[in-house]
Amino acid sequence: MKEPFKIGICQMQVDDCKEKNIIKARSMIREAAAGGCKIVVLPEMFNCPYISSIFPEYAESCPDGKTIIMLREAALEEKIYLIGGSIPELAGDTTYNTSFVFGPRGEMLARHRKLHLFDVELAGGLTFKESQTLGPGKDITVVKTGICTFGLAICYDIRFPELSRLMTLMGAELIIVPAAFNMTTGPAHWELLFRTRALDNQVFTVGAAPARNENAAYVSYGNSLIADPWGKIIVQAGEKETIIYGDIDFQLLNSVRQELPLLKHRRADLYELKPL
Amino acid sequence: MKEPFKIGICQMQVDDCKEKNIIKARSMIREAAAGGCKIVVLPEMFNCPYISSIFPEYAESCPDGKTIIMLREAALEEKIYLIGGSIPELAGDTTYNTSFVFGPRGEMLARHRKLHLFDVELAGGLTFKESQTLGPGKDITVVKTGICTFGLAICYDIRFPELSRLMTLMGAELIIVPAAFNMTTGPAHWELLFRTRALDNQVFTVGAAPARNENAAYVSYGNSLIADPWGKIIVQAGEKETIIYGDIDFQLLNSVRQELPLLKHRRADLYELKPL
Repeated sequence: MKEPFKIGICQMQVDDCKEKNIIKARSMIREAAAGGCKIVVLPEMFNCPYISSIFPEYAESCPDGKTIIMLREAALEEKIYLIGGSIPELAGDTTYNTSFVFGPRGEMLARHRKLHLFDVELAGGLTFKESQTLGPGKDITVVKTGICTFGLAICYDIRFPELSRLMTLMGAELIIVPAAFNMTTGPAHWELLFRTRALDNQVFTVGAAPARNENAAYVSYGNSLIADPWGKIIVQAGEKETIIYGDIDFQLLNSVRQELPLLKHRRADLYELKPL
Repeated sequence: MKEPFKIGICQMQVDDCKEKNIIKARSMIREAAAGGCKIVVLPEMFNCPYISSIFPEYAESCPDGKTIIMLREAALEEKIYLIGGSIPELAGDTTYNTSFVFGPRGEMLARHRKLHLFDVELAGGLTFKESQTLGPGKDITVVKTGICTFGLAICYDIRFPELSRLMTLMGAELIIVPAAFNMTTGPAHWELLFRTRALDNQVFTVGAAPARNENAAYVSYGNSLIADPWGKIIVQAGEKETIIYGDIDFQLLNSVRQELPLLKHRRADLYELKPL
């Protein structure tokens, strides 16, 4: 059986200044690594304000963007798996909401581009249209490492049960989701979604949110969390900037899958779910 | 737009005596219909104790079983859509966990046989093996009526997100689930599952459980409920025998689907879910 390990979520407060955000992220990564984490996770759009129209202005290209360089070096220096939340990425003419993942030797392990763009008009006035400035990703991301296999999704991606199920069927034991729910969708749905995806798929789910900033144009719900394969929240932040830590225990994952064999009981003769 | 209507859930206390159960069910159906319900729902295995080994003893064949006749006549007399919870059904050599549905003219609209059999060994000692005495169904059930289109599933079926999603894609606006969670799975997962299936699919979900009987071999969690397309519980029973009522409001369903267009945002170019 795989060894348990510690994961850390940096619920950082995002500033308007990219440079400040990079420095803050680097410092929180250092602290999480010093706390014994093998995996450290940053929040969605941690280097820029969550405002659709300004994503292109903050966008970076791989591999030479400042934020991307910081992430690579941090993973290498701290010898951790670093899930770089997400940042606006420029590739060709298109900006993506992208999560870069680096391993302990500084190697890039994945680049997940948000698949489902957040285009909503909520009652109460909150309107958001990511597709005005962002392009959608086209690849499902599952990363196999020496310590675990994890699926990677960004925020709105978690609302689509097909994606979490597919990542599970592709071997994910954790589903890691940098995400910024807001003050409407957060209280209504945040815990619910992370708990149920964990329960249905018998995986750990990890939600990494920015800290709440009441003065921002888009107010993040915060409440970063980890849910276990039984659907129970094992650790959760409040609204403020903080680092939370959780243990990924494969013994629990195995025993849940044995007691309640949901993945074995799927009726693969009646329905089929597959990537295209 | 479709007219709103009232739905009633009969959270009945199940007795060892089939005859008594039939009489009790008939009387609760009458009360719910008198309360203005267009759809009335009974719980899982409402005519027999929830003990796998005795299902065959209580089983009936269609169309002449006593319980089935009662259901047909009740639907006709009360002029309602009656979701007959579930009962053990004998067909050929096989016993099924089956939900019979009758319309207001006494016509049989559906016969759903539980698709996913409950074979579990929970920590704390609860073991259940439906497959010892039951056969699995092989059809997904979506019923179109004059007042709404609903999907029908039984208990453990609700744990499989593929099924609820497929029923939604087939047109379901409600997902109705006679179900008997227990004192381990109920507190941990009951509300969570009904809320998330409703939220993900932007449908109403209806869970109809037997009342709790602490003296039974299998202790039902009770807590029958209705969740709305925003994932909010609109009515919920406690543990005792009762009838609960809820309004199915298509305006709410439409506005949720408009504000947060999850079904439209599915990446049908990246993954495919289909019935086989």
